[in-house]
Order: sequence, then C-alpha cells, then structure tokens
Amino acid sequence: MNKFWQTCARCARTVRFSLSGRCGCGGTLLVEYDMERIRSTVHKSALKERPATMWRYKELLPLAREQSIVTLGEGWTPLLSMKPLERKLNVRQVWVKREEQNPTGSFKSRGFSSTISLLKEHGIDYVAVPSNGNAASAMAAYAARAEMRSAVIVPKDCPGIIIEECLRYGASTYVVDGMIHDASRIIEEGAQEQGWFHAGTLKEPGRVEGKKTMGLELAEQLGWMLPDVIIYPTGGGSGIVGMWKAFQELLQLKWIGGKLPRFVSVQEAGCQPLVDALRTGAFVPPSTETVTSKPTGLRVPNPPDGELVVQIVKQSQGTALGVTAEQIREAQMQMGRLGISSSPEGAATLAGLIQLREGGWITRGESVVLFNTSHADKYLPWTPPAAVPVIRSYEDLREHQRKAGRG
Amino acid sequence: MNKFWQTCARCARTVRFSLSGRCGCGGTLLVEYDMERIRSTVHKSALKERPATMWRYKELLPLAREQSIVTLGEGWTPLLSMKPLERKLNVRQVWVKREEQNPTGSFKSRGFSSTISLLKEHGIDYVAVPSNGNAASAMAAYAARAEMRSAVIVPKDCPGIIIEECLRYGASTYVVDGMIHDASRIIEEGAQEQGWFHAGTLKEPGRVEGKKTMGLELAEQLGWMLPDVIIYPTGGGSGIVGMWKAFQELLQLKWIGGKLPRFVSVQEAGCQPLVDALRTGAFVPPSTETVTSKPTGLRVPNPPDGELVVQIVKQSQGTALGVTAEQIREAQMQMGRLGISSSPEGAATLAGLIQLREGGWITRGESVVLFNTSHADKYLPWTPPAAVPVIRSYEDLREHQRKAGRG
Ligand SMILES: Cc1ncc(COP(=O)(O)O)c(C=O)c1O
Ligand SMILES: Cc1ncc(COP(=O)(O)O)c(C=O)c1O
Repeated sequence: MNKFWQTCARCARTVRFSLSGRCGCGGTLLVEYDMERIRSTVHKSALKERPATMWRYKELLPLAREQSIVTLGEGWTPLLSMKPLERKLNVRQVWVKREEQNPTGSFKSRGFSSTISLLKEHGIDYVAVPSNGNAASAMAAYAARAEMRSAVIVPKDCPGIIIEECLRYGASTYVVDGMIHDASRIIEEGAQEQGWFHAGTLKEPGRVEGKKTMGLELAEQLGWMLPDVIIYPTGGGSGIVGMWKAFQELLQLKWIGGKLPRFVSVQEAGCQPLVDALRTGAFVPPSTETVTSKPTGLRVPNPPDGELVVQIVKQSQGTALGVTAEQIREAQMQMGRLGISSSPEGAATLAGLIQLREGGWITRGESVVLFNTSHADKYLPWTPPAAVPVIRSYEDLREHQRKAGRG
Repeated sequence: MNKFWQTCARCARTVRFSLSGRCGCGGTLLVEYDMERIRSTVHKSALKERPATMWRYKELLPLAREQSIVTLGEGWTPLLSMKPLERKLNVRQVWVKREEQNPTGSFKSRGFSSTISLLKEHGIDYVAVPSNGNAASAMAAYAARAEMRSAVIVPKDCPGIIIEECLRYGASTYVVDGMIHDASRIIEEGAQEQGWFHAGTLKEPGRVEGKKTMGLELAEQLGWMLPDVIIYPTGGGSGIVGMWKAFQELLQLKWIGGKLPRFVSVQEAGCQPLVDALRTGAFVPPSTETVTSKPTGLRVPNPPDGELVVQIVKQSQGTALGVTAEQIREAQMQMGRLGISSSPEGAATLAGLIQLREGGWITRGESVVLFNTSHADKYLPWTPPAAVPVIRSYEDLREHQRKAGRG
C-alpha cells in the first residue's frame, strides 16, 4: 500500500527500509514516505470518514499490507478543553490530550500497535522490550493480540499493577535490579540465544511512527491549526521525535502551514538529562547513582538518542524543565479535581505549565496542549501475587529459566 | 435543540419532561423524542462527520441546549473483532465492545455524562449516588468536570482502587456496612437535609439515555446491522434497558430494520435475581443474607425495575445466566491472553458465551457482541491511604460530619 525508506537523522544517509532503527553512524533512522504520491491521492478532508483509531493515517505508517495491522483500538483519543485551568492560570487555551484512554491505559499503545504490526509483517514471532513499565504492558498486549511471544524486563521498583498487566497479557516477565538501560543490556545479551527481537526505544522504526500519530491527531482535532506550545513528559524521547516528525510530514503534505508549536520536555528533577543538556549545550547522561526520581516513564538517565531530542526541542524554540515529586503530586491532585485520571507523568505536564506560566515563558494569549500519557490507577502501590524473578544479568535470567525447566 | 417528554414503561402514561425517572405507578419513566422531526432533519450518513463521542447522537439525548454538555471524552469506544475466540468457540463472529476505554475506565462514563449534563442544565449543584463502585467514580469525575459537589456511598467491600478514584475526583466518600440498596436508603433519608440530588439507577432519566448510546454505537459501528446476540453483564439493568431503547428508536428512525439481537444478561451465581426471575416467571429479590457473590457491578439483589429488564430480555428471545467466580476468573485470564484488560463483569460475558455456545443456545453461524464494561486494574486488592468513614445509617453519616466539623 505504501512506499517508504529510511533516512538517518544524523548523517542524512538514505537506506532501504529494514527493521533496524539505528544507522552505522550512531544516528536514528527515520522512515520516509513518498509524500508527493500521498499528497496527490489523499485529501485531508477524506480523513473524516476514516476509523477512529490511529490507523486513519495508514498512508503515513510503514506497513506494506493493510492486513498486517494489529489493532486493539488505539488512538483518536479525546482532546479536552480545560476551562478551569484557563481561568486559573490566565491563559487563552489549555487542552489535555487523554492518552490514558488507549487500550492499554497509556500512549504506549500507539507505538506498539505499529511496531507489532510491522514485526508481524516481517515474520518476527518473539519480541522483548526493556521498559519503565507502560511500554512493557503495551508490548505484551499487542504481542498477545498478534499471537506472538513476548518477554519484558522492567526495573525492580516498577509499579506492581503494571507488572501485573504484563503477566496478565502473558509476557515472560522479569524485574531487573537496576534501571531501564540495565534491562536493555540484558536483552541485547540474550537476543540471539532466546530468539528475541529487541523492540527497545528507537531500536526499530515502528515505535516513532506510531507515536507520530499523536501529532497527526492533534493537528486534525484542532482543525489543522497547531497550538502554540506542547508540553510532553519526556523519558526516552520518542514521543517528541514522533510528533516533530508528524509536523514535518504535515508541512510536506501542505495539510498545515505556518508556525510549529514550541516543544516543552518535562522531566522529574531527580533525573533530568534533557534539561541539563539544554542548559549546558552538551548531552551528559547522569551517573545512575545520582538518580533520585521515582520509577516512572520519565526516569531514563541515558536516552538512546538524547541529542536528537534536544535538537528538536531547541529548533522548535522550546525548552525543558524539571519538576519535583511534590509538584507532580500536587498537579495530580488538581487533575483529579478536574475529573481526570492522571499518571505522575501526565500530571508533570501541568506542573510544567504552572511553572512556565508563572515565569512568563508561556504568555496569556497562548494555547497549550498537555499530554496525559497514562492512568493514575496504574501507579498505586501494590504487589502482584505471582512471584516475578529478580535478575541482575542475562546469566540470572538463564538460571531462572533452567530452574523453571524451560532451558 | 430537542423536543422530548417521558412515558411510563409500565402504565404508558405520558408526562412532561422532569428530572424524575419514576412514575406514580412504580414504573420507569423513559424519555421520548419527536422521531418524525429527527428523521426529517438528520440523515444517518451525516453522523460520520460528528465527534467521536456519544454526543454524536445529541438529537437522541435529553438536553435543551448543546452548551449544557458535560464531556470528558466518553463513548465511540472500539468494537474489536476477536478471531481467536471465533476459531476456538467455532462461532462466526465475536466482537468485544471496549467500554473500559471510557474516561473513567468504565461504561459508567456514558450514563453520568448525560445525567450530569442534565442536572447542570436544571441548576442542580450537589449530587449523590449509591453504587457498587464504577458509577460512584464516574459520577465523581463528571461532577468535578461540571464544578458540582458530589457524595458517593459504596459497599464496604468495594474495590479500594475505585474508592481511591472517588476520593481523587473530590467526592465526599462513604462506605456502607451493607449493600447498594442500603446506600440508596441512606441517600434517600439524607437528601433533603444535605441538599443531595439522588442520581441512583433509574431515579432520573439521564442515565438510561447515556447508556443507550452503547446500542446506537453498536449499530453504527456494524454498518447499521445488529449482531444476533448481545451478552451484557447485568446488575441494576439500565444497560439492557438503554440498549433496548436504542434499538426501538433506531427502528422508528428507520436507520435499522429487521431482527433485533437477543439479549443475554450475565450475572454472578451468588446473586442472580434476573436469572431466577426468568426461570420462575416472578421477580423475587434474594434476601441479602443469601448473597455470596463478589463486590462487583453484578451484585444488585434488588434492581429498581427488575421486571422491566426481565420483560426486555424475554421479548428479545434472550436469556439470563449465572456464572461462577471461578469461571469469571478463568475468562479474565483468557481475555488477558488476548490482549484485553477485562474487569470481572466484562469477563463474565465471555464465561457466558462459552457456556451458551457449549449448550448450543448460540449456534455457529451467529454473531455475538460482548460488553467489556470495565478495566481489570480497578479490581486489584488495595487499601486507600485516606480513611473513609464506614457507616450503617444516615445518622452515622451525620455523626461523621459533626465530628469533622461540617455539620
Ligand atoms: C506514562 C509515560 N509518559 C511518558 C513517557 C516518556 O515517553 P517518551 O519515551 O516518549 O519520552 C513514558 C515512557 O515510559 C511513560 O510511560
Ligand atoms: C463494570 C460493570 N459492569 C456492569 C455493571 C452492571 O450494569 P447495569 O447496571 O447496566 O446492569 C456495572 C454496574 O455497576 C459495572 O460497574
């Protein structure tokens, strides 16, 4: 159905489409489409009759065949106007994009709907992901839907309810005594022996493309007029990369014109590599020992392509800021009192808005979109009844499999 | 925008529209619309361009003004085709309607979007509901959105996460040492003194109208062709009443024609008044002492208009059946392995399908829709950190208010 290839965001090399998201130079390979062809065959007004999922943008997603789509009903989430916040903060327009209404309760549904579709189309049957939680549960759900095997590794302090979700969706589930990059290292080590496809952030091209649909939807839902500011809770950064890519493509299609939004990356103060990079000009991942923030999707000390994220935020004339755990908690309470179930990450965007409005970086005449990326419920402290193996290394994982009689 | 009145489902008396859902004869007052006018002004194909919420059916909802709408982005939930279930159960088509993707994580969002809109339009500012949980949390969220006060009373054994939701949405939250009808009694007793509007099931006309949109959507999503069988987890019964009403209205509008689906009410074996009524021909609420089922939305020993529900199920040539807690648990596991987060109530519909397919009541050539009414996560055992007062009577509630310095 589509024609597409990949281009490196760093060295600009163009390559034939494959399941790899990394260029030899270390840069990120992004999918490109034949925009001329799409422009001449699809008119944006035709979208109105498309299904209310992210697959309404199928021409801008990298599948060869429509039958490959693995869907659980993701995307086309509500964009809510927030009058009380507008009044309270004295700002023209505040919207919340309710990503927690996705099938797996977080925006991660989008990335894995496209990734799992892509992997299925290419004959992959076993997929693994390192994750802070929501990506793991989303991958497990989409793998289940595709009748594919899956394995997930999350930090030991990952919210118990999210671990429970992974178990229920049938993933082989491990917790690592470490952080998300430790989980990633273990998957790299075991990939060949286990037969895992490593679907970590920016490892393959599907996830950014799926997340891109957040940007496409925003444009369509606002009548092809983008807001002045987008505040996004940033961890690995593929959400920002995806939305930025969406806007570039919409410009190419001439479905939008004019000024693009300023991106604001919100992080938690105890782990804010993007904030620091933007301030110092250089990307230096914090050493793991200094990380003090909570186990949320924002705790990614060493994102796979932090440089690209920083470059996009800068280019958009945006900014990055850290908010404290206390500010997040307060913002979460506020969101609740406005009728919205908001995860710490989602609430962090409101904390960011408050700070930027007070500081005058956002002015009263502007319009702002907050991304509520996940549900409050998932983060309640709870211990799953099933024992989940704690590992420190791939060797531990093998050891566990042997004991369980599976190796 | 609309013209509407109410007619009693029992004595057929027609009355001017009011906020009451009960007729003097004890029957349920249902809203009626000027169908001729709607038919001549709205064509069903025009719906395609409407917003992806239940308010796409605004002409069939009882508001005088569109500005009264209180929305959190409810409805137009995905309808998922379930190939693995079709293969496994050897049945032509199985669909799951993913009601857990609503703003409050359950189908109850629909009922309270319409009820709270209606109450706001009529100047109500304080609303109370007795509930097994999901209705309470939904009401709290919509009241918050409408900047209205709310109070909820749920059973002591209500899942803690749902109680937490009520607290976060800012409702005055009480647990009753009893069941949902005890909560209802307390609200009746205190309504005048507290200034509560009692928004219990079928007490007012909004809720059925909101739930009706499940039926409208089903028809539209299936291209105006209804399935052979709808399996619905039934408690108070307003979901069944609402969908039945939807189909009657669609017939009047001539948007559908021909055979209507058979309704299957699934209950949990430990509290199955509808199942018993269908078998014995008479509606006899079980005494509370004999109730052994779990604290879910299915545990309603004495639904407000059980006769109407039984009559609808019968008229549709449907049936009612009880499934065990163990069957529910297994079905929940199965739903998880298919990638779907399913509450006990939602999973009960799959347990029902399995039983009815095995027994031959559903044949292999048929199409079936299961309603997944809520999320799995909400039912995980957890104790909210905030102390919630336990009451047995309205006097206890007053006593608590006095102690808290609010009375
Ligand atoms: C709820 C939530 N919000 C935000 C993020 C960060 O998103 P990104 O990786 O796109 O920066 C995550 C990632 O785990 C998450 O789970
Ligand atoms: C998740 C869930 N499913 C089903 C029901 C029963 O619905 P109804 O009252 O429409 O019969 C409830 C009611 O509390 C519920 O919470």
